[in-house]
Amino acid sequence: MNAWYQQTAPQQDVVLSTRIRLARNVASLPFGSRLSRDQREQLDTQVQQALETIHLGDNSLSFLRLDDMDPVERQALVEQHEISPDFAKNPDGRLLVLSQDGSISIMVNEEDHLRIQVLHSGLALKEAYELCNRLDDVLDSQLGFAFDRKLGYLTACPTNLGTGLRASVMLHLPGLQQQKMISRLADTVGKLGLTIRGTYGEGSGVVGAVYQLSNQITLGITEKDAMENLENVTAQIIQSEEQARKALAQNQTALEDKLWRSYGVLKNARLLSSEECQQTLSWVRMGVAMKLLPPIPYSTLNQLLLTTGSASVCKDEGQLLRPEDRDRVRAGYVRKVLQEN
Amino acid sequence: MNAWYQQTAPQQDVVLSTRIRLARNVASLPFGSRLSRDQREQLDTQVQQALETIHLGDNSLSFLRLDDMDPVERQALVEQHEISPDFAKNPDGRLLVLSQDGSISIMVNEEDHLRIQVLHSGLALKEAYELCNRLDDVLDSQLGFAFDRKLGYLTACPTNLGTGLRASVMLHLPGLQQQKMISRLADTVGKLGLTIRGTYGEGSGVVGAVYQLSNQITLGITEKDAMENLENVTAQIIQSEEQARKALAQNQTALEDKLWRSYGVLKNARLLSSEECQQTLSWVRMGVAMKLLPPIPYSTLNQLLLTTGSASVCKDEGQLLRPEDRDRVRAGYVRKVLQEN
Repeated sequence: MNAWYQQTAPQQDVVLSTRIRLARNVASLPFGSRLSRDQREQLDTQVQQALETIHLGDNSLSFLRLDDMDPVERQALVEQHEISPDFAKNPDGRLLVLSQDGSISIMVNEEDHLRIQVLHSGLALKEAYELCNRLDDVLDSQLGFAFDRKLGYLTACPTNLGTGLRASVMLHLPGLQQQKMISRLADTVGKLGLTIRGTYGEGSGVVGAVYQLSNQITLGITEKDAMENLENVTAQIIQSEEQARKALAQNQTALEDKLWRSYGVLKNARLLSSEECQQTLSWVRMGVAMKLLPPIPYSTLNQLLLTTGSASVCKDEGQLLRPEDRDRVRAGYVRKVLQEN
Repeated sequence: MNAWYQQTAPQQDVVLSTRIRLARNVASLPFGSRLSRDQREQLDTQVQQALETIHLGDNSLSFLRLDDMDPVERQALVEQHEISPDFAKNPDGRLLVLSQDGSISIMVNEEDHLRIQVLHSGLALKEAYELCNRLDDVLDSQLGFAFDRKLGYLTACPTNLGTGLRASVMLHLPGLQQQKMISRLADTVGKLGLTIRGTYGEGSGVVGAVYQLSNQITLGITEKDAMENLENVTAQIIQSEEQARKALAQNQTALEDKLWRSYGVLKNARLLSSEECQQTLSWVRMGVAMKLLPPIPYSTLNQLLLTTGSASVCKDEGQLLRPEDRDRVRAGYVRKVLQEN
């Protein structure tokens, strides 16, 4: 079965992926840190039982105890956006429900009792929301989520109160980044109740021009309105990015040189750091989108972006390798994937 | 007909080419700058007549008036080691005799009346000397060279007095350069009456680790001894270079990374400066020699080293292009040549 990021989807030239996440808590249990170890185990079991009734076709669910995993395996899931860094770091009593293609991941005993998450390649807010909603309904009917008529869903942190919904799109904005237009963009989307930041959340450097755009407001707004707002702003950013790319292409030979050299690095390097890998993949993805490079499928480029992190490339070894070995393994993996596609 | 640098020859992994040059002057004419314009023209004609009797098979001679050529065409011949920079810069009344494969070039009215030069790929001192000697005999019999029983051949500059012979080999020494062993090597060969310097003579930067080793002594020594000395020292340098390459290979992945990235640049770049071209070709040539890269023929690598100078790549245009256009044309030429081979 193909991974979720290998699906074809609209707007893949600019939108890497869509994520819907619902924060939910069981009404009958204490919230967050007030939950005892026994109660956490009990919640894990209840979630598993509740989900055994759902039918997802081939995309069956696995139930993974976090403390049974290697740290490197957990870190790989962080790199692939399946779980949060905090969830990986404190595995005790935590359960991950993961579908075979990785499109569904439910973190049990994260900050909230449940974080229900659906990932989709490209721009697919509606599809992702519908699946997330279905999982929410099944779980709610079995577990009974904490809900207040006036406030909406109750959450551990007040920033999630209301819809408990975080909808986000991962955008590839090398054009806007080159044109130094990201900070102005951040100001603009801020005024529209959205936030834009580098991959893996605030504070991280933005390598490879990958930005996450997400809704900020969960209180006093419907899910539908939040998602429509996000969708509209995304459409405008896509337009701006396409214009910025056209502007870059005015210096066509210099641009082609950069793109082909990046392609040459990925095809030939024997040592590839995570940062250089992300950076060259970024240029190659833009080159493919602009038809200035050979048509490498987006499924391949998505795979490389998501599975070349330091933990992901070391997963088979069961531990993080030394940096030079990691860079060698990464370079070999990238060449192999590009050769196959 | 293939160019001289496309011949296969011994020791091509380290020795790019061999050059024999004889400085000769006609006894009946004033030397150097004391020659009138009319006498120079007359000498041009005499040389041409003298050489019309020689049989060189398919490798026929052309007689080229330097002032009939574009400056860029003359500069391209400098880059390809056919003529000296001074000969190119002051074309007035000068004649170039050039064989079809470029292996024979005779500069008429350079510093000396004649500079008879033979080029050969790889290490081929004997072959090159024999051909040079044959040309010398034919010209001497017709023109009568200035010769003193005690001093030997008389030359414009006393540094050439005696044999008038300059024998040199172009060496590719990336291993010794990386190990920072060149200056020690220069001291050693100096004590043996030889000199080693970067391509295009003294004072030029050494890009691509190409060094010229040549004899310094022309007085009180026979041609045979001078060449044996050069051959012996060359054999020792080849050994040292091979050891230095083995030492580099101890850090195999780092070395392979450097080599494959250079290969990737040559195959993919859309803009390639002369310096980067020489540098990456240097690594690729070493990689091919060490069997760490695909087996690109030495004839191809020699061609690229000798025909990617700024003037050579602009030759078809009849003038030097702007640097960015030159770099684009060079990159395209390199990709084309590598694709064909």
